[in-house]
Amino acid sequence: MPAVTPIEIRDEDLALITYDANGLVPAIVQEHGTGEILMMAWMNETTLRRTLEEGRTVFWSRSRQEEWRKGDTSGDRQFVREAHFDCDGDTLLFVVEQEGNGACHTGEFSCFYRAFGPDAGTS
Amino acid sequence: MPAVTPIEIRDEDLALITYDANGLVPAIVQEHGTGEILMMAWMNETTLRRTLEEGRTVFWSRSRQEEWRKGDTSGDRQFVREAHFDCDGDTLLFVVEQEGNGACHTGEFSCFYRAFGPDAGTS
Repeated sequence: MPAVTPIEIRDEDLALITYDANGLVPAIVQEHGTGEILMMAWMNETTLRRTLEEGRTVFWSRSRQEEWRKGDTSGDRQFVREAHFDCDGDTLLFVVEQEGNGACHTGEFSCFYRAFGPDAGTS
Repeated sequence: MPAVTPIEIRDEDLALITYDANGLVPAIVQEHGTGEILMMAWMNETTLRRTLEEGRTVFWSRSRQEEWRKGDTSGDRQFVREAHFDCDGDTLLFVVEQEGNGACHTGEFSCFYRAFGPDAGTS
């Protein structure tokens, strides 16, 4: 199992994050080392705090309306190596070590396996 | 100026994209070659079509409620090299050649220049 590296929660950091009308902020997940974009999901303040505390990504599932600790069901956990926020504080970026088969529920390693246009194809 | 490479618009691709209650979909922008995440912004169906047609990123500004062709004011244009969408069709990913000083209005190359925690610092 990859090392777990919690990130210290600082009030001055959290104060810079803004949430949408549903109390959510989008979180991009990028693979450590390769730079591949794995997925995008949503966090509320509680799951953002849990992600930093536990060093694993924890999201808010909009469809199920519940916390979703990535990999608890699938085994494909994400261990946080870097945690960034953008200039407006309204988007998060986590650089992770991806465990198991990848990030996508389809079995693909990345959720962005499809591309626009005929050359790339819609697999 | 980098080459402009339009991407063919196919109805079967666009039919897979879902928009939120405001008619918007988040678009992640990643630098070609380095894999660095530059920014995240929003598109509606019109600006998604323009992005594919023109081979340059065109967003919808939520704050100004208007189309925003990246770089028209700043000169820091983004030329699309790859255009992906995720498994749920509710997030886009554009791989671009970034022109000029970078993607962020602060003058930083990437909007994600800040990190959580004391080591990385909040510059």
